This record gives sequence, structure tokens and C-alpha cells, in this order.
Amino acid sequence: MARIVMKFGGTSVADIERIKNVANRVKREVEAGNEVAVVVSAMSGATNQLVAWCSQIAPLHDAREYDAVVATGEQVTIGLLAIALQELGQSARSWCGWQLPIHTDGVHGKARIMSIETDEMIARMAKGEVAVVAGFQGLGPDNRISTLGRGGSDTSAVALAAALKADRCDIYTDVDGVYTTDPRIVAKAKKLDKITYEEMLELASVGAKVLQTRSVEMAMKHSVRVQVLSSFEDKPGTLVCDEDEIVEKELVSGIAYSRDEAKVTLVRVSDRPGVAAAIFGPLAEAAVNVDMIVQNVSEDGKSTDLTFTVGNADLERAKKVLDQHKATLGYEKLIADPNVVKVSVIGVGMRSHAGIAQKMFQTLASEGINIQVISTSEIKISVLIEEKYTELALRALHTAYGLDAA
Amino acid sequence: MARIVMKFGGTSVADIERIKNVANRVKREVEAGNEVAVVVSAMSGATNQLVAWCSQIAPLHDAREYDAVVATGEQVTIGLLAIALQELGQSARSWCGWQLPIHTDGVHGKARIMSIETDEMIARMAKGEVAVVAGFQGLGPDNRISTLGRGGSDTSAVALAAALKADRCDIYTDVDGVYTTDPRIVAKAKKLDKITYEEMLELASVGAKVLQTRSVEMAMKHSVRVQVLSSFEDKPGTLVCDEDEIVEKELVSGIAYSRDEAKVTLVRVSDRPGVAAAIFGPLAEAAVNVDMIVQNVSEDGKSTDLTFTVGNADLERAKKVLDQHKATLGYEKLIADPNVVKVSVIGVGMRSHAGIAQKMFQTLASEGINIQVISTSEIKISVLIEEKYTELALRALHTAYGLDAA
Repeated sequence: MARIVMKFGGTSVADIERIKNVANRVKREVEAGNEVAVVVSAMSGATNQLVAWCSQIAPLHDAREYDAVVATGEQVTIGLLAIALQELGQSARSWCGWQLPIHTDGVHGKARIMSIETDEMIARMAKGEVAVVAGFQGLGPDNRISTLGRGGSDTSAVALAAALKADRCDIYTDVDGVYTTDPRIVAKAKKLDKITYEEMLELASVGAKVLQTRSVEMAMKHSVRVQVLSSFEDKPGTLVCDEDEIVEKELVSGIAYSRDEAKVTLVRVSDRPGVAAAIFGPLAEAAVNVDMIVQNVSEDGKSTDLTFTVGNADLERAKKVLDQHKATLGYEKLIADPNVVKVSVIGVGMRSHAGIAQKMFQTLASEGINIQVISTSEIKISVLIEEKYTELALRALHTAYGLDAA
Repeated sequence: MARIVMKFGGTSVADIERIKNVANRVKREVEAGNEVAVVVSAMSGATNQLVAWCSQIAPLHDAREYDAVVATGEQVTIGLLAIALQELGQSARSWCGWQLPIHTDGVHGKARIMSIETDEMIARMAKGEVAVVAGFQGLGPDNRISTLGRGGSDTSAVALAAALKADRCDIYTDVDGVYTTDPRIVAKAKKLDKITYEEMLELASVGAKVLQTRSVEMAMKHSVRVQVLSSFEDKPGTLVCDEDEIVEKELVSGIAYSRDEAKVTLVRVSDRPGVAAAIFGPLAEAAVNVDMIVQNVSEDGKSTDLTFTVGNADLERAKKVLDQHKATLGYEKLIADPNVVKVSVIGVGMRSHAGIAQKMFQTLASEGINIQVISTSEIKISVLIEEKYTELALRALHTAYGLDAA
């Protein structure tokens, strides 16, 4: 017998029929001999409506009241799912965040889970009752409802799995797992059976929006085995787990990309100590997130070119901030280019194997693709290239690293 | 300085604009120097949607889960109203039933309020903060959300006013007060400045659907002064209060009517002890509510005719039950007539004045209206007449008792 947390997102509980389908799926898991807790999101669209109402009344509103309003979305779903389970003859009860309670800190609107009280839940699960828990919400130290920020239900599920010492946390979603790359672009993309937490984190942060980054961090911290699988098909998905559990490690697990990048080059910045701080300080103050940075070697000892990337949405703000500080920074001109894409090769295997980066550079070169910026981490190599080469680069790299499906 | 509870129903908070209007109205009450608590219902239509979802999944559903689902309607409104008040610069906070808490019994779906903890609320109101409280809901002894049954927000408001020892409980609604009779039928109907609890109870139970009967009972028990007034106009309404507070008492305060009546006559029922129990026992078991009863004097000492009224909706069920017991009851035939109306003259003054009933009978007789059944209480005389005479009877009685507006 295993203890399993199942999590269903908004599209999986979008209407009454789908809620009934979820109930069937949950019941099958119980009948297979498991203890089951279910975490659900609001019916799709419900949260957006609630958020819109708050903003219509006051663009800047009390986060505590916002939390009270938006938390109702999940409260509706847990009650309906519990009723659907009971209608199938499966005993079940709903739990709001404040009922368990799920204790959070006091940062309303984007609270963090501190601890979850599970004693009563565990006693009831042992008697065969399914616990249906509201995702996205908890109880703040002020005894008021708190919410975790958009997409927080994944985090709720993983935190609950950790508190319950569950054998697995199954995240049901509208994709059937994690792929070696985007299957809409590379037809030969393969679904992965397993992937490490570290790889999943890199994938999540470069645009493979399967799991919330925070939930993966939490899973890694508490060693919660997370499975990503489809709510509409009945087959295994991808298990996100510890490296030790993966016997045959690939050198490269996946290739991710992000079009949400813009390149900024400052031409002939004066080359003196402190200039980097002078540039990135004001950007940080303006909440512009800077990602890749490359500084050319100075040719004349006096000035150099500096290139970095920011999110597309931040580009105009970044330009404005740099323009305001032009006199201090002493650069000649600013060149902005939003037509770039970041392509990343990810794999824990590259820790112990050389040549992974070299293969990336060679492959792109042989396709005539120029690399504009390079950045690396322990398990990732990212390059910035012209956006028009996105598909070509992904397909070539997918083949080069031997990831193509047979 | 007074302490006031204001209650707004679903139509008063039906959309964002109306919620903003309510906020303005509440703020004016605070600026007039009062301590204010507000009780609100769900946005109109919201509760119906939530109830429908529960029923779509399972016609017979767990009342505890139903409560968790439907209580979200009010939770949305309190958060939005608190935001709207803050946007006007008026400090405010929302309170769910479980947060105060409002303790109820454990009868989910139609719980009764046992007590309300108000210490923190009173301390905050003393500092000028408006308390925005969810109507219709509370916390059961099982630590789960309970609801009071449809229309329960009036009861929440009166119970809160009692717990706060409020000077007044203002119930904002879509009519501007309580009238001497239905103004849609009698153009000369007058709005009453004051009415006693007892009279209001009789009015409510005979079809003047301004206040929930339970809320009036509770107001009477705890001597809560209740004002019924319009949410759309800015003028005084009708005060429901103790008899002592009404200096100039009218003999008759109002004339009510109910078309939701059907008359049943059992012809030649055997006239023996226990026959009434034999008839009304099975009807009670079938949840048929019997109202007026009249038994003719037996002419032959063996059999008699028995007439009574039931709600229109119960008529078919009543006929079926009586048909099943025909052999035992030994009646000759059953005559059912749904085309009847109950007209009631109400007034605390009739306790000490004779002749009120006589005037009713004379007035109807002079209009050629036949009285089929009569029943009386201490402060009410009701007659059953043919439905087609409804308007004629109401207008004639309204004039006869001197109630016509100048």
C-alpha cells in the first residue's frame, strides 16, 4: 500500500463532467489499495474572474481581502469533488487551508507554506477516506486566509506530500509528461520516463511550463517524488526524482528554449572598475531582471562593449533607465534587439563529461547559426541566437545529442 | 453615537457598481458618527449557481460539503466590499463566519446560530473600522462551515445586532418599507413608520415577503429594533419594534393576502372521536402543512363535513394521502378547490377592541363576497374567499379600516 497525493489543475476540474472524471480517477487509485489525498485548483476561469473583480474596485487592494476573495475558487472545487466522490460510494471530505490548517507566513497574496497539520487527515485516510484539499491557500499567522500566488496549487500538493511523507505526488496536467524538447517544434521529441530535480528546475526556468519552479524546489528539498502526467489519458508520465533513482543517465536530458528574451548592447562603455555595478544597480532598482551577461575584452584599455539580456517585457524600462544614466555610464550608444532566442542544453551528465559544450557549438556552426552570447551552469549550457533559427537549432541539437525518438 | 448593523441583500451587491454604492452608503453612516457592522449576502445569482452545481453532481448530497460550496458566495462579497470601503478611505475588514466565529448547531444546510464572539470586532469598531460580516454562514461544532438556509442573511444580521447590543439593525432591500397592504393592488396603500414584531410576524407568514420569519422571531426575542428600508433610495423605512415604542397604535396595521392556498372539503366524514387525528395524522406524516380548519356541526349525529386549507404545492400530495385512507376515514367524497385566497386583517389593537372582526365580515358582505372559512389569532383575523375577489376585498377592507392614504 502506498500513500499518494494527486493534484488536478483548473482545466481538469473546469466543469461538472470533468470533476466527475477526476472523481473516477481518484476512486481507481483508492481501489488499487492506496491512501489518497487530492489537491485541486479552482475551476478554470474562476480565479481570473475573482481577481478581475478585486482590480475593478481598486487597482491596488488589500492583499488580505484579495486572499479572502480568490481563495473561494478552490473552496468550491473541493466541496464539489467531495460530493462527486461520495456519489461514487467513495467516502471523502473536503479541507480548506484554514481547516487543516496549512500554516503560512503572513505575506498575503504570495505566502509561503511553513507547516501542515496532518494528524486528523492521516487518521481518516487510514480508514479509507479520501482527503480533498484546497490548493493555493493557507492560514496566515493573523488567522486570516492566505494564498500562495498564481500556480501555487503545485506547491500545495508537493508540500502536502512532504508533510504526509507520501510515496509519490502525481501532478495531473494537460500534457502527458516532460519531453526532451518542445514536441510542437521537434516531431521526434521523446517523453522522458525520469528526470532529476535539478534538470527539471533548469527546464522550468527556461520556459518548459509544466511545473511551477517553487514546487520543484520544494520537492527537491524534501525528496518528494513528483510524477507529471495527463489528466485526460491513462498512462504513466514523467517522474521527477533524485539522481540516485535514475540508473541510466543520459548526458543530455533535454533542450529548452525561451523566446522571452531581448538583447541589449552598450557600445564603448568606459572600462573602469565599478562600471558593471553602475549599470546593473539602477536596473535592479527598476526591477529589471538581467540574465546573460558578456563583456568584450577591451581593445584600447579605455572602453569596451557590454552585452546582456533582459525579459522582453522589461526591455522598454531597461532602455529608459540606461538612458537616464547615460552621462554617468559614458557609453556611446545602446543597441536593443528583441529578435533573439535563448536555447539551453540541460543534463546532469555534463558534470562528469567534457565535450558537451563543444558539440553544441559545432552543431550550430555547421547549420550556419551565429552564437551571440553564451552562459553556463553546472548542468546547463545556454546560447543566445537569432530568433529565426529557433526551430533549426532545436532540431539539429536534438539529433546531435542522440535524443530523437526511433 | 449609535452602534448600527446594516444588512444588504443579493440585489444590492449584484455587481461591482452596486458594491461601490453600498460602500458609499456605509461610509456615510460612519461619518454620521456611528459604529457600523455590515452583513452581506452573495451577489445575486451566485448562490443559485453554486446550489445547481451541487445538485448536478448528486441530487442528494452531503450537507457539509454543500455548506462549504455555497458559503463561498458571501465570502466573495465581504472581501469585495472591504476593498471598496478601503478605496473610499474607510478602514474595514472582512469576517467569514468561522473567523469571528459565529457558532451554530450542527444541522448543516439549515443551522441555527447559538452564539457570536464579538470581542475583537467591538474593539476594532471602536477604532472606527467597519466590520464586514458574511451573512448566511457560521461554524458548526464539527469545525466545519455551516449555513443557515436560504434567506438566512437577515437572521445573521439580527443575531449580530443582538450580540453587539446594537441600537438598530437596518435591513436594506428592494422595497422601501412595510406597507398597510400590497401597493401593487391597492394604490392607496401607505408605508408604515412603525410596526410591532407580532404584526410583522403575521404579515411575513401570510405572504408579505419583506423579512424572513426567523429573523423577526429572533428580533422579538432579543428586542432588536429592525428597520426595513430601500437600498436604492435615501429615506427612512419602516421600524419593526416593541409595542411600547409605538405611541399611536392603529386598531389595524395592515391587510395581507396569500394566493398560495387550496381548499379541501371531505363530505360526510363519520362524526366520531378521533376522526380529526385520523385525517391530519397521515397528512402530517406526508409533510403536508394544514392551515385553516373548520368542521361543520353534525346534522344527523353520524357524519359531518370537514374543510381545511393546504398550500397549493401540497394539494396533489394531500389528495393522494386522503384517497389511500378513504376506507378508514369513511368520507363520501373529496372536493378540492385551488381557486381561493386567504385575506388577513392584522393589528395588535384588536386585543383590546371588539368589533374588528364584525367590520371585516360586514365589509365583505356588502361587496357580495362569500366567506368560506374563518380563523383567528390574538392579533389576526383571516378569511378564505374566492380568488377572483382578491383585489375587491383588499381595497374595500383597506378603506373600511381607515388605512387609505390621504
